[in-house]
Amino acid sequence: MSQPKRKLINSVESCVDEALCGLVRASGGLSLLRGHRVVLRSDLDNLKGKVALLSGGGSGHEPAHGGYIGAGMLSAAVAGGVFASPPPTSILAAILALHKAGASGVLLIVKNYTGDRLNFGLAAEQARNQGVAVDMVIVAEDCAFDQPSKAGRRGLCGTVFIHKLAGALAEEGCPLDQIVSKVTEVLKGIGTLGVSLSPCSVPGCLPSFDLPPGDMELGLGEEVGGRRVIQQVVKTMLDHMTNPDSQSHLPLSSGDAVVLCVNNLGALSCLEMAVVTRAALNCLESRGVVVVRVMSGAFMTSLEMAGVSLTLMKINPEVLRLFDATTSAPAWPSLSSVCVSGRSYIIDSPFLTTRPQDDTHGEGPWSPMMRNALEKICSTLLDKQEELNSLDRAAGDGDCGNTHAQAARAIQNWLQDHVVPGCPGQLLSVLAGLVQEKMGGSSGALYSLFLTAAAGHVTEGRSDAASWARALHAGTQAMRRCTYQKYGGADPGDRTMVRNINLHFSVLPFTASPHLEFPPSSVKATSGAEATRDLTARAGRASYIAADRVTLPDPGAVAVAAILRAVMETLEEQK
Amino acid sequence: MSQPKRKLINSVESCVDEALCGLVRASGGLSLLRGHRVVLRSDLDNLKGKVALLSGGGSGHEPAHGGYIGAGMLSAAVAGGVFASPPPTSILAAILALHKAGASGVLLIVKNYTGDRLNFGLAAEQARNQGVAVDMVIVAEDCAFDQPSKAGRRGLCGTVFIHKLAGALAEEGCPLDQIVSKVTEVLKGIGTLGVSLSPCSVPGCLPSFDLPPGDMELGLGEEVGGRRVIQQVVKTMLDHMTNPDSQSHLPLSSGDAVVLCVNNLGALSCLEMAVVTRAALNCLESRGVVVVRVMSGAFMTSLEMAGVSLTLMKINPEVLRLFDATTSAPAWPSLSSVCVSGRSYIIDSPFLTTRPQDDTHGEGPWSPMMRNALEKICSTLLDKQEELNSLDRAAGDGDCGNTHAQAARAIQNWLQDHVVPGCPGQLLSVLAGLVQEKMGGSSGALYSLFLTAAAGHVTEGRSDAASWARALHAGTQAMRRCTYQKYGGADPGDRTMVRNINLHFSVLPFTASPHLEFPPSSVKATSGAEATRDLTARAGRASYIAADRVTLPDPGAVAVAAILRAVMETLEEQK
Repeated sequence: MSQPKRKLINSVESCVDEALCGLVRASGGLSLLRGHRVVLRSDLDNLKGKVALLSGGGSGHEPAHGGYIGAGMLSAAVAGGVFASPPPTSILAAILALHKAGASGVLLIVKNYTGDRLNFGLAAEQARNQGVAVDMVIVAEDCAFDQPSKAGRRGLCGTVFIHKLAGALAEEGCPLDQIVSKVTEVLKGIGTLGVSLSPCSVPGCLPSFDLPPGDMELGLGEEVGGRRVIQQVVKTMLDHMTNPDSQSHLPLSSGDAVVLCVNNLGALSCLEMAVVTRAALNCLESRGVVVVRVMSGAFMTSLEMAGVSLTLMKINPEVLRLFDATTSAPAWPSLSSVCVSGRSYIIDSPFLTTRPQDDTHGEGPWSPMMRNALEKICSTLLDKQEELNSLDRAAGDGDCGNTHAQAARAIQNWLQDHVVPGCPGQLLSVLAGLVQEKMGGSSGALYSLFLTAAAGHVTEGRSDAASWARALHAGTQAMRRCTYQKYGGADPGDRTMVRNINLHFSVLPFTASPHLEFPPSSVKATSGAEATRDLTARAGRASYIAADRVTLPDPGAVAVAAILRAVMETLEEQK
Repeated sequence: MSQPKRKLINSVESCVDEALCGLVRASGGLSLLRGHRVVLRSDLDNLKGKVALLSGGGSGHEPAHGGYIGAGMLSAAVAGGVFASPPPTSILAAILALHKAGASGVLLIVKNYTGDRLNFGLAAEQARNQGVAVDMVIVAEDCAFDQPSKAGRRGLCGTVFIHKLAGALAEEGCPLDQIVSKVTEVLKGIGTLGVSLSPCSVPGCLPSFDLPPGDMELGLGEEVGGRRVIQQVVKTMLDHMTNPDSQSHLPLSSGDAVVLCVNNLGALSCLEMAVVTRAALNCLESRGVVVVRVMSGAFMTSLEMAGVSLTLMKINPEVLRLFDATTSAPAWPSLSSVCVSGRSYIIDSPFLTTRPQDDTHGEGPWSPMMRNALEKICSTLLDKQEELNSLDRAAGDGDCGNTHAQAARAIQNWLQDHVVPGCPGQLLSVLAGLVQEKMGGSSGALYSLFLTAAAGHVTEGRSDAASWARALHAGTQAMRRCTYQKYGGADPGDRTMVRNINLHFSVLPFTASPHLEFPPSSVKATSGAEATRDLTARAGRASYIAADRVTLPDPGAVAVAAILRAVMETLEEQK
C-alpha cells in the first residue's frame, strides 16, 4: 500500500478534537474542558467529598478513555494525539478542575507507557505542590512477553476493569489510599493478550506493520502462521497467558473465578467476536475455571486493527460486587448479574406441527380423486421438466423445471406410504410442508405459503366451490402480503418479484371473485401464463435481464397452468 | 485479492451457530431453542399475557438481532446463514415457543427482503392455522434509491428503533393490533442511508465489491470519488435522504425533533465514528433540526464493512418516552435522557498555576547567585550542543544537544525580563514550567518532573544543605515512580529507559543519603555519567541499538554532569 488508508475524517490535524466533540455531544452527561483535550462529567457537583478518578492516554483507543466517564467510573479523561501521550498541562488542568469541584483527592489511572507515566507523573507533582491530594495507579497487565523489558508490561484493556472497580469504590466514598491499595491488589490478578489479522494505520500514515496473508500476530509480537482455527489460537493465547515460565504470566488454577473481557481491537466483525467469545469460554471452562461474567465488544481499540484481545480478571465476592455496581458511563456494557459458567441456556422446542394431524384422520370420499389429481400433477411436472428449464434459461438460472421435478418426486414418494386424508385442508397442509422442505428456495416458500393459507378454508365438511374459491383467494392474498410493499400494491401488470410469483398472476384472474365455481377452467390459467409474456419485469432476478430477452412466457406461470390443467383433467375424468 | 479474507473462525459451516452460542453464553438472560438458530429470553414466563416480539434475518448483521432480546425489546430472534434468510421451520418454532410461553400474540418484525418476507410470512400462516395470533410489520426505511424497485426499500438499521418502540409497548401491555398501528405510523418518519470505504466478505467468499482506492460507496449504490471530507459526505447523505424528489426520502423540516443513530457497518474505527457523529449533529442542527438523542456504535453491521449509516427517526413525546424506556437487551446502548441539541457541554478551566507565584515574590539574598548559576548552566549547555548531539548520534536520534540548547535559550530569555525569586523552590517551579513547555518531549518531562518534585523541599526560609539534599532526593524519587515498574525497581545498572533517565543515574550516587552536604561535588556526577558508558540498555530507544555501538557515555548524563559542574563552579566563585 503506497498511500495512507482513506478514513472518514475531515483532516488528520482535526480528527482527535472532532472525535472528542462527537463523543461529548452525543452524550447527555459529558463535557469538555475549555482549551484542553479533557472530557469530564457534566455533574461535577456530585464529586464533592469523594475521590475523583482521572485517566487518559493517546487517542485511537476509543471508547477508552472518554467513554468510561460517568457516575461509578471515571470523573474525567485526558486525550493525547493519536497514539501520543497527553501533555502535562492538560492533565494538570483536569486534576485542578476535579479538585476545584470539591473532590477529596484525585486518583490517576495510567497505562504503563513511558510518555504517560512521565506526563501524568509530572502533572501529579505539580498538583501536589498546589495542595491537591493526588495518587497514581499504573496498569501493566500485558502477558505478551516472557521477559518484559525494563519498560515493563504494557497497560491494555485491563485498564477498563480498574476504571470500573476504582469508580465503584470512589462512588461509595472509599478514601484515596484505600482505593489505591485495593486496586493494586486486584491488578495482580489481571492479564491480557491480543491477536490480530491486520494492522491499523494512524490517520495520514501507512499501516503500522505488514502480515503475510493468512498469518496472524500474537500479542503484537510473535507471528503465528499456518491455517489455525480460532479454537487453537485461543488455546495458544490462554496457555501463554498462564504459563508460569513467563515472567508476565497470570497465575490461574482450576476453580478460580474470573471475569472475561473479549475486546475488539477495532475492525473485527461482530460475528467473529461472538465466535471468539464462545471459544474462550469453552477453553477456560475446560480448565475448570469459572467464568462469572463476560464482556464482549470494543472496549480498548487500536483504530481499525482487525483483532481481538482477551483479558482475565480473577475475582472474589468483593471485586464482583464492585464490578456489578451500576454506572452511567456510556461505553460500559449492559451486563446481567447471572454467573455465566453453569447457566443452563438451552430451551426445548415446543412440539412442531408443521404438518398438522398428518396421519390422524383417515380417507374420505374425495381421497381417491385427490390422489389421482396429485399423481397427474406429478407426472405432468416431470414431463415438463426440460421445457420449464428451457424457458427459465431465457430469464432466470434455468432450474425451474428441476425444482418443480424435485417437488413432484417428493409428493410421489409421500403418496407411496400415506393415505390421502379426506379433509382437503389437511392435504394442502401436508403438501405445504413437502414443498417447503423438498423444493426449497423462494419457489418452495411461495407454493408453501399459498397452500398453507388456502388450507384453513377447505375442510372435510366444507369443500364446495365457494370454499375452494375462498381458499385460493386466501392463498394469493398471503403471497401478496409477503411479496409486495404495502405502498406498491399487487399489480398484475408487473412481471415476477421472484420468478414464481407468476403463480400469483396466473391464479389472479379466476380468484378475483371468490364466488366462482371450482374447479376453474385451466384455460384461464394458461392464458394468464401466456399473458406474462408481455409483462415488464420490474422486480426480482428477471428485472436484471434486458427486456428484449424476456419474450417467452414465464416458466413459473407455465408450471402453475400445467398444475391447474392436471387438476381439471382429473375432475373431468371423474364426471 | 485472490483468496477469501482470513477470519477468526473455526469453519465457514460452523461460524453462525458458534456465534449464536457465543452471544447466548456471554449473556445472563438469553437462551437457544434446541435444534434451531433461535435465540430467546430465558425468562419466557414474563411474556405471559403480553405480546411477544420476534425478529431475525440473515446472520452477519450482529448485534442484530439476537443482541436486542430482553425485557423491553425483542422476545426472540431467528438467524439464517450469513446474509441468508432463516428457514420458515425455525421461525415457526420460535413463534410456537413464544405462544406456548403464554404470549397473547406474536408480532414479527421483518426487514424488507424477499426471502425474509416469504419465510416469515409462511411461518405466520402456519402459526395462524394453529390458532396463534400473529401479525407482521415490514421495515423498509432505506433512503438510497430515488425510484425504489418493486421489491421496495430495504430494511436497515431503522429496524432497531422498531424493536425498541414495539418492545416498550409490549412491555406495558399494549395489544397486538395497537402495537402494529403505532409502529407503522412511526415507520413513516424513519430513514437510513449508508456510506462505505470498503466491502465486506462472507466467510469463505471473496469481497462483495471493489472500490477504486480513495472512492467511497454511497447507499450501497452510487460511488463517490475524489477527496471528500466527512463533513461534505454527511451533508450529501442528509441532502439525499431528505430530498423530496426522491421517492424514498424522509420528509424533514426545520423544527423537527429526531433521534439520530450513527451506525458502524462493521470495521470503522471508533475514532472515525465519533468524527462522523459530530459532523452529522452539526449538519442536522444547521438545518434547524433538534437532535434529541444520539446512538453511536455498531447496531446493524455488515460483517467487516468499513462504513457508517445514518438513521433518523422523527419523534414526538410518546415516541421519545418509548425510546427512553428501560430494556435489558445486551446490545441496547446506555443513553442518558438529556436532549442533545442545545445542551451546554463546555466547562471553563480553573485558573492554571503551573508557575506558582511566578512574580509575586521579590528577590532575596540568594537571587544573584542563582542567577549566576543559571547563566553559567545556559552557556555551558550551548557550548556543549554539538558534543551532546554527537554522543547522541551513537545511540539515539542525535538531538540531545539541540533539546538542551532549546531549554538553555528559553531560560536565558526568561532571565532577561524576570527577577530571580529569593525562594529557591519558586525558581525550580518556574524552571519546571519552562523546560516542560520549551524543551518538550520526554527530556522536558523528566527535567520538569525532577524540578517540580524538588521545588517543594526548598523555600526561602529553608534552603540549607539538608533541604537541598531532600529536594534532589524527592526529584529522583519522582522520576523513579514515573519511569520504572514497581516490580522492576530502580536499578542503577541499567541504561536509560528514555535517554535522559541517565539524569537519574548520575544524580543517584550523591542523593543516596539525604544528609549529604550541598552542593555535592560534580566529580561524582561526572563519574556517574562516565559509568553509563558500560551500562546495558534494557529499555527505551537505546535498547533497539546493537550493544557494541553503545560504548560512549550517555549524552543525557553528560548534560546533567555539566549542569551540576556549572552550579558548583558558581558556588566556588562566590566563596
